[in-house]
Amino acid sequence: MPKRKTLTVRMRIRIYAGDRMLGPGKMELLSHIDETGSLSAAAKQMGMSYMRAWTLVKELNRDRSRPMVEMSRGGASGGTAKVTRFGRKILTLYQKMERAGNKAAGPYGRRLARLLK
Amino acid sequence: MPKRKTLTVRMRIRIYAGDRMLGPGKMELLSHIDETGSLSAAAKQMGMSYMRAWTLVKELNRDRSRPMVEMSRGGASGGTAKVTRFGRKILTLYQKMERAGNKAAGPYGRRLARLLK
Repeated sequence: MPKRKTLTVRMRIRIYAGDRMLGPGKMELLSHIDETGSLSAAAKQMGMSYMRAWTLVKELNRDRSRPMVEMSRGGASGGTAKVTRFGRKILTLYQKMERAGNKAAGPYGRRLARLLK
Repeated sequence: MPKRKTLTVRMRIRIYAGDRMLGPGKMELLSHIDETGSLSAAAKQMGMSYMRAWTLVKELNRDRSRPMVEMSRGGASGGTAKVTRFGRKILTLYQKMERAGNKAAGPYGRRLARLLK
């Protein structure tokens, strides 16, 4: 675990729906794909291998009727990745959930962190 | 990852204060110690080795002027463990933080889980 000098509260929220899991890793990847339009660029930003990112995208797209990422191969750039409307809906909800959770937990977290100093 | 049939939202909150970290594992252990009065019983309830539990207690007690668990050795029962007043204060705050975070994040989590079904 890296040493951190400041007080921080870190919240990780995972959603389990049947055997699907959606957590911070996949959501961060989705947001980087949205930003860069490229799976390899998104993977790079996260210090993640392309293979690993590809595996996560497959999971994000497991419901084939509603993929979250559209991959297109070929072209000079070596293919692009695009977050679908459904993917963006999920991402937005997840981010709202994180913000709401953090906002509510924050004051307690800061009190705890001060007590632990 | 175990399959879960129901929709669940699982939130894990970690507090980083300097190089100390306080998260769900240590807090769950603390609550089991409080319940059982014994480190080995608490470890057993969590499916954790005694050694591992002991390591966590050492971290909980790193600030020697304010330990969270009081261990006493010997006796027929092989020693007892007791959550200190400071330990209980930390535990209570952590549980309040979890409840507040979950309550705020819950509605978004349930919407997400339904979308993912």
